[in-house]
Amino acid sequence: MASRLQSPRPLAELAAHVGGEIVGDASLSITGVNGLAEAGPSELSFYGNKRYRKQVDQTRAAAVLVGADVPSREGVTFVKVANPHLAFAKISALFHPPRTHAPGVSDRAHVHASARVHPEATVMAGATVAADAEVGARAVLHPGVYLGEGARVGEGSILYPNVVVREGCLIGARVILHSGCVVGADGFGFAFDPEVPEHYKIPQAGIVRIEDDVEIGACSCIDRATLGETVIGRGTKIDNLVQVAHNVKVGPLSLLCAQAGVSGSAEIGTGVILAGQVGVVGHIRVGDLARVGAQSGVAHDVPDGATLSGSPAMDHRAWLKASAAYGQLSELVREVRALRKKVEALEKEKHG
Amino acid sequence: MASRLQSPRPLAELAAHVGGEIVGDASLSITGVNGLAEAGPSELSFYGNKRYRKQVDQTRAAAVLVGADVPSREGVTFVKVANPHLAFAKISALFHPPRTHAPGVSDRAHVHASARVHPEATVMAGATVAADAEVGARAVLHPGVYLGEGARVGEGSILYPNVVVREGCLIGARVILHSGCVVGADGFGFAFDPEVPEHYKIPQAGIVRIEDDVEIGACSCIDRATLGETVIGRGTKIDNLVQVAHNVKVGPLSLLCAQAGVSGSAEIGTGVILAGQVGVVGHIRVGDLARVGAQSGVAHDVPDGATLSGSPAMDHRAWLKASAAYGQLSELVREVRALRKKVEALEKEKHG
Amino acid sequence: MASRLQSPRPLAELAAHVGGEIVGDASLSITGVNGLAEAGPSELSFYGNKRYRKQVDQTRAAAVLVGADVPSREGVTFVKVANPHLAFAKISALFHPPRTHAPGVSDRAHVHASARVHPEATVMAGATVAADAEVGARAVLHPGVYLGEGARVGEGSILYPNVVVREGCLIGARVILHSGCVVGADGFGFAFDPEVPEHYKIPQAGIVRIEDDVEIGACSCIDRATLGETVIGRGTKIDNLVQVAHNVKVGPLSLLCAQAGVSGSAEIGTGVILAGQVGVVGHIRVGDLARVGAQSGVAHDVPDGATLSGSPAMDHRAWLKASAAYGQLSELVREVRALRKKVEALEKEKHG
Repeated sequence: MASRLQSPRPLAELAAHVGGEIVGDASLSITGVNGLAEAGPSELSFYGNKRYRKQVDQTRAAAVLVGADVPSREGVTFVKVANPHLAFAKISALFHPPRTHAPGVSDRAHVHASARVHPEATVMAGATVAADAEVGARAVLHPGVYLGEGARVGEGSILYPNVVVREGCLIGARVILHSGCVVGADGFGFAFDPEVPEHYKIPQAGIVRIEDDVEIGACSCIDRATLGETVIGRGTKIDNLVQVAHNVKVGPLSLLCAQAGVSGSAEIGTGVILAGQVGVVGHIRVGDLARVGAQSGVAHDVPDGATLSGSPAMDHRAWLKASAAYGQLSELVREVRALRKKVEALEKEKHG
Repeated sequence: MASRLQSPRPLAELAAHVGGEIVGDASLSITGVNGLAEAGPSELSFYGNKRYRKQVDQTRAAAVLVGADVPSREGVTFVKVANPHLAFAKISALFHPPRTHAPGVSDRAHVHASARVHPEATVMAGATVAADAEVGARAVLHPGVYLGEGARVGEGSILYPNVVVREGCLIGARVILHSGCVVGADGFGFAFDPEVPEHYKIPQAGIVRIEDDVEIGACSCIDRATLGETVIGRGTKIDNLVQVAHNVKVGPLSLLCAQAGVSGSAEIGTGVILAGQVGVVGHIRVGDLARVGAQSGVAHDVPDGATLSGSPAMDHRAWLKASAAYGQLSELVREVRALRKKVEALEKEKHG
Repeated sequence: MASRLQSPRPLAELAAHVGGEIVGDASLSITGVNGLAEAGPSELSFYGNKRYRKQVDQTRAAAVLVGADVPSREGVTFVKVANPHLAFAKISALFHPPRTHAPGVSDRAHVHASARVHPEATVMAGATVAADAEVGARAVLHPGVYLGEGARVGEGSILYPNVVVREGCLIGARVILHSGCVVGADGFGFAFDPEVPEHYKIPQAGIVRIEDDVEIGACSCIDRATLGETVIGRGTKIDNLVQVAHNVKVGPLSLLCAQAGVSGSAEIGTGVILAGQVGVVGHIRVGDLARVGAQSGVAHDVPDGATLSGSPAMDHRAWLKASAAYGQLSELVREVRALRKKVEALEKEKHG
């Protein structure tokens, strides 16, 4: 937050922190980080996308993190690094250290006598920790958090206000769960009984296991398994309003963007990217490093490394061509009709 | 949960429970249920989909629920039933009985003096029951639940942590509301006033009525009616992150899958299936037993029994053909251009 | 709510309230408002859409608000107004005044000693107001609301049960936040570090600023900026389950319908309408007064006043034609194949 002022830091120290080489004024002092367009004369910015080339020329920033291949220029100090975006993130983290919270359990929290809360953990007023649940060191449970019976939260994890983790679910270390996300609600499983008639509820008796370093966005839902586990792999990041159904396995280091949905028992590999509003049907596999474009609908197995788009999803380049042609479709119908008439006329003349 | 161990049960008892006929070893004792691939040597599994034929041959399960027409085989005990999936669900329910909660109102719940809570109901710490609200026998309100003024919850209904039911809304018996779902928020209704200018808020003065045996998923939203009622019919099941707008009527026994959305005043019939991420525009009717494929956009009335796909939605088979052709669209454009040239050449020769 | 009965009001008074002219019985007394089909013989209805012409002839309503150009008819009292829908909304508001709440802070609310709560504000049991947060006059914080450190809520704003406003975020006056919506969760920003490997978290150090008269639906998410502000402009209305990513700017008086999603740093102009389930990619601009049809995917800048549909989005009329032709696509492929054969035959005869 703007109000938590940080002291200025020497540019030399910042450059060293990210293994960068200063080309220009190494004696600068930096008060913060900002975008090229927004940065003021004591701030550090970064340039990682050619799209913003023009902004580099116009920025008021004191210094700019750039790739190793960007030629030096008069009048602006560059810090050359391998990955300007990553270096920017790491320096921003110096200026915006994580918020800390006094450890301890509020006497207005609802903590069951059998729960085990680490003395260095924080459980705020209005949070609930049910029977046999466990909260690790330096974990933070904000107001309105519900941690169900036998659930476990690992070291350093943060559960923001109104997060729900249902009974038995396992949350690893350094996990971040944003407000309103729900881990371990019942999967959507019914067997139709025509005799009653009713949709008979299939017990959802499994759990969710969230591995270390996962982040899950606001109002996202990860359903518990029917039997066994729904798994979110180490270091995977999930945006807001995402649906992950029962028995899904998401591999490590994947990114699921906002409003994507993954149906039951689907498997998402390692390093996969599902863009916004993507849907994946149940019982299929999306291979490692696959990328799926926004609003795509994936109905079949996806090979490792594939790039798909469209609903139903197809090879991204094929989809680009097809969508470009789509706008001409009604014209095409008209033209084919006209061609048919001409061909019929030619045939008639020929054989008439 | 895995930790709530159940005693083993005789296979004969389980078979009798679902009216099944044992073909094989009737003296087996069963410790639990599981999928064909996961089941251990004392577990019961089921086979209901030919896709998994191979797994039947390889399963380590003690016994398998199968359809009446599956031929018996050496070395594996079958339990023949009319509907293996349903039988499995019913037997799973024996091994995973619903969780029970001690009745009573926590002294850390916020219950208005005028509210009527049945002595056999459970209201946990941090739940709110507002003025004139009513909670039926054996209903369970978890922490963070809000039951608004004059709202009613029927017998045996479960409101998971952080469910919100706004004022005046009516929840039937044996209803399950998952965490974060919101029943009775204001519908999205405004009349534009160009004089101010502003979107003038139309009072949302109606309610939501949820009939018996409905289940609503996590973070789903059922808006209150502008006037009158938004209705979810008996036995309908709604998945996570679903939007049901003001004045929608959903008939009994329908299934609304995750992230589907139904716009204002639409009517969804009996036994309808809306797959994931489907959108339905306002003021139309989706007929009884209609099925709408994932990500479809329904913009017109749907006849009873229809199967639709696509955005805009069309007959499912027509859509399958069209989508199959879509990938060739740019090629088609090229080919028509080539044909036109050839035809022009032919015409020229003819008349030239 | 139905139970909060209002006294009847003279039609003459209601007509005067909206500047209407009574054509018919000016002595009527009105007990409430309702739709044409539902209205009883002492209720007022409205007719604003030709689609409902037939219902005007059949309504049992005592009187009907109509446009100035609707010809008077025997046996039904009309109230002629410039905008029947708006007039109806304003009269409905007379019959359904906003709920009022006794001011004061519940002793079961969790309010930090350094927070500033206006004496005319209401903070209910189970709500949290963190350090240095501010609550304006007549603002209402329902149970389960979380207002983070240094956040501010303006005069007359309503935060329904279980709303979360994270630290530092600014909520204007007369804002309505519906249950489960989350303002100020971290944006989805990571820089991939192949050395570890990990998605390194980029600090989300900005805030969200919600201007006056905004309404945000249930379970919608407005992410805080990476640096700077995410902004929702004055009088904009957002429906349920909408995603607004970090650093998005939404102009005044726009409407974002249910389940729409706007990616990072996109700019939505003034008076824009995004229909349900629309997706907008990051870093683009949707111009003033643009309208985007349901389920569309907007991947490029949209000019002011444009009307788009489709995924990827195109001019709405072009999209209508293309979608109409889409159902014939497989037929078209077949036909082109047949034409090619005929043309080849013609060429062969010619040159053979």
